[in-house]
Amino acid sequence: MQHRQPAQQGAHCVIGRGAVLGKNVTLGHHCVIEDGTVLGDDVFVDSNTIVRGGVTLGAGSQVGANCILGEYPVDFYRDHARHDHPLVIGAHALLRSGTILYGGSTIGQGFQTGHNVTIREKTTIGDHVSVGTLSDIQGNCRIGNYVRLHSNVHIGQLSRVDDFVWIFPYVVLTNDPTPPSGNFAGVHVHSFAILATGALVMPGLEIGQDALVAAGAIVTKPVPAYAVVVGNPGRVSSDVRRIKNKFTGEPVYPWRHHFTTYMPWSDSDFTTWYNALDLPQKRHYGLEQIEPE
Amino acid sequence: MQHRQPAQQGAHCVIGRGAVLGKNVTLGHHCVIEDGTVLGDDVFVDSNTIVRGGVTLGAGSQVGANCILGEYPVDFYRDHARHDHPLVIGAHALLRSGTILYGGSTIGQGFQTGHNVTIREKTTIGDHVSVGTLSDIQGNCRIGNYVRLHSNVHIGQLSRVDDFVWIFPYVVLTNDPTPPSGNFAGVHVHSFAILATGALVMPGLEIGQDALVAAGAIVTKPVPAYAVVVGNPGRVSSDVRRIKNKFTGEPVYPWRHHFTTYMPWSDSDFTTWYNALDLPQKRHYGLEQIEPE
Amino acid sequence: MQHRQPAQQGAHCVIGRGAVLGKNVTLGHHCVIEDGTVLGDDVFVDSNTIVRGGVTLGAGSQVGANCILGEYPVDFYRDHARHDHPLVIGAHALLRSGTILYGGSTIGQGFQTGHNVTIREKTTIGDHVSVGTLSDIQGNCRIGNYVRLHSNVHIGQLSRVDDFVWIFPYVVLTNDPTPPSGNFAGVHVHSFAILATGALVMPGLEIGQDALVAAGAIVTKPVPAYAVVVGNPGRVSSDVRRIKNKFTGEPVYPWRHHFTTYMPWSDSDFTTWYNALDLPQKRHYGLEQIEPE
Repeated sequence: MQHRQPAQQGAHCVIGRGAVLGKNVTLGHHCVIEDGTVLGDDVFVDSNTIVRGGVTLGAGSQVGANCILGEYPVDFYRDHARHDHPLVIGAHALLRSGTILYGGSTIGQGFQTGHNVTIREKTTIGDHVSVGTLSDIQGNCRIGNYVRLHSNVHIGQLSRVDDFVWIFPYVVLTNDPTPPSGNFAGVHVHSFAILATGALVMPGLEIGQDALVAAGAIVTKPVPAYAVVVGNPGRVSSDVRRIKNKFTGEPVYPWRHHFTTYMPWSDSDFTTWYNALDLPQKRHYGLEQIEPE
Repeated sequence: MQHRQPAQQGAHCVIGRGAVLGKNVTLGHHCVIEDGTVLGDDVFVDSNTIVRGGVTLGAGSQVGANCILGEYPVDFYRDHARHDHPLVIGAHALLRSGTILYGGSTIGQGFQTGHNVTIREKTTIGDHVSVGTLSDIQGNCRIGNYVRLHSNVHIGQLSRVDDFVWIFPYVVLTNDPTPPSGNFAGVHVHSFAILATGALVMPGLEIGQDALVAAGAIVTKPVPAYAVVVGNPGRVSSDVRRIKNKFTGEPVYPWRHHFTTYMPWSDSDFTTWYNALDLPQKRHYGLEQIEPE
Repeated sequence: MQHRQPAQQGAHCVIGRGAVLGKNVTLGHHCVIEDGTVLGDDVFVDSNTIVRGGVTLGAGSQVGANCILGEYPVDFYRDHARHDHPLVIGAHALLRSGTILYGGSTIGQGFQTGHNVTIREKTTIGDHVSVGTLSDIQGNCRIGNYVRLHSNVHIGQLSRVDDFVWIFPYVVLTNDPTPPSGNFAGVHVHSFAILATGALVMPGLEIGQDALVAAGAIVTKPVPAYAVVVGNPGRVSSDVRRIKNKFTGEPVYPWRHHFTTYMPWSDSDFTTWYNALDLPQKRHYGLEQIEPE
């Protein structure tokens, strides 16, 4: 890439001479594109957004107004040593206004954020992940592919979230067993699990594959695969495979056989999609051990 | 309205030639007022705020800094087809800094927001509604008149909130009975109901008129009128009419007979105000069936 | 201080002629520094930030992008009577992007905020306090020294938080016993207490010194010193002094004997530090009555 001027830009933008812009980049008004930024082809950046040095933003990405991409990691705020903390975001991101992404993370393609999202440093995020309005990922986390966080989710440091996990509003993954302490232990949420609104998971626990933590449950013990957990303190009340749609009487879990929106099997069904994967692809999605039903 | 220049503006503003400004409009610095905006007389817009095309803002409104009015509905972000999605806000709005209002909604007069509020598309909001800091209305909702949402309230899509409802911090109205699914069922909160801090309402439930959901309650069943619901899972523990002020021993509910601030009966009392309404006015407030006590 | 021009500034800044800037002040792009602002030596203010008249910001402070310092108190928005509402912030503050601090408060030195924090008027905050991302202090509060609020904490009006208190994400201090009413009663959290994630405290209650409110607990009664409170409704389940580290078997509370990060005793230990204090210093920290163990 060698194009250095945007195809179109609003008023009062500030573009560093060392910024590298792809073809057909469009900027709104009052944007700040610092030295050391790489914007792919067809990127759109809306007004007032700041892209700091060290950010690479994939082709076709759309960035709303008032965002900060490549925010300084905390310890380096004072010396602005941002170039040591690159932020790589894949192609076709859609970052809504007010999104704050720190330097020092790596994010896959098709990434989406709601408004005023914060994602801190040293976090790895897979492909096709969505993070809702006001959600806060505290850094040092590993998020898989096709994970969907709704609004106002709080992911503590050292959390690990596998592929195809759903996390609903006001869920918190905690990490300190005896606060305050420095002995953090992150939560690990396995593939296809669902954490419903307001669920709170205590430090270091595992949430099993396909488990369902009900709204408002406080999880104080590890949750087995397929378990339904309810209450405060949380207890296993059922198996997800026993839950039926109230009107149709049909089973609704595991959800991968009943829900396709946003998912890679949206054109067919999970089993067809899964059977067409080769082993490296299955490994990519952490799906070697899934038994299609 | 034909006045096209603000009476007063700060530095580095960008005003579209097709923007229509009323008399005595004042802008801060770095504002962006796009083509197709209509700002009423005496409107004040603070620095860095973006008003997109298709927004009509009523006379006497005050808009804080860093707001985005007429934000693109999600599906239209890429083609900026904003003019098809008008946002109408009534007179005398007070929108605090960081407020994000999507195109495609209609909001009455005397509207107030706290900071960093998000209200998405296809939402109808009545007169004299207040939405607190960091609250998030997810779109496709109907909010009545004189509704007061405190900070950090999350209103799921398809929710319906009638007149004179109070919703306190961290309340969530959910909408998906078997997440993830596309089978949304919104909550319906009836007039004069109160949802206290941290209450969570399961999908599709009705909260009866004058009901009180206590702090931290998880509502899993419909709540009858005048019921008090507590706990996880929520259970009816009492009737609001039995609750007394701890110090005076006086009853405090239905609150309309004991609290007047912000309300249209603030100059007299509920019964006097109510008796002076004619039938169309009663219907406007959904008050045909209220029995004044 | 008489230096009036920043040592360095970005493009498109607006600096009021009556602003008083110390030595070596650096501004980003698109900053607004209003008349009546006093910025100490070596202050750094990042892009798009607005500092309103009446703000005094201590030497060595760092302010992120998109902040608003000296925001208008609600009642005065319309007439912008900001100079009557000074905001004083001590030296070496680190205010992350999107922080909104109202006029009319006083904040000590070493203050830190996360992103999109809101702190309203008439609040007093001591030295070395940290307020996490998206936290909301509603005004009319008293916060002591070395208090640490994590993300998304909601502190109702009239709350009082003593020194060395820890408050974790989604904790709410409420203030209205019979909402809606005007009869606010703030919570009082005593020194060294810990409110874990998602704890909710009912209006007017006292949380005793060194008490631990567990994650998700709903506190409905006063909490004695050293008590552990769990559940909904909250009940005293234990004494903090009985809690051991799961791996080492060592006691972990009172935490001041086991945790030193961010604390004034980080170079030695609590007892050594405490014994070296003179009486006025002990009084400053509210520590006359602490019995070192």
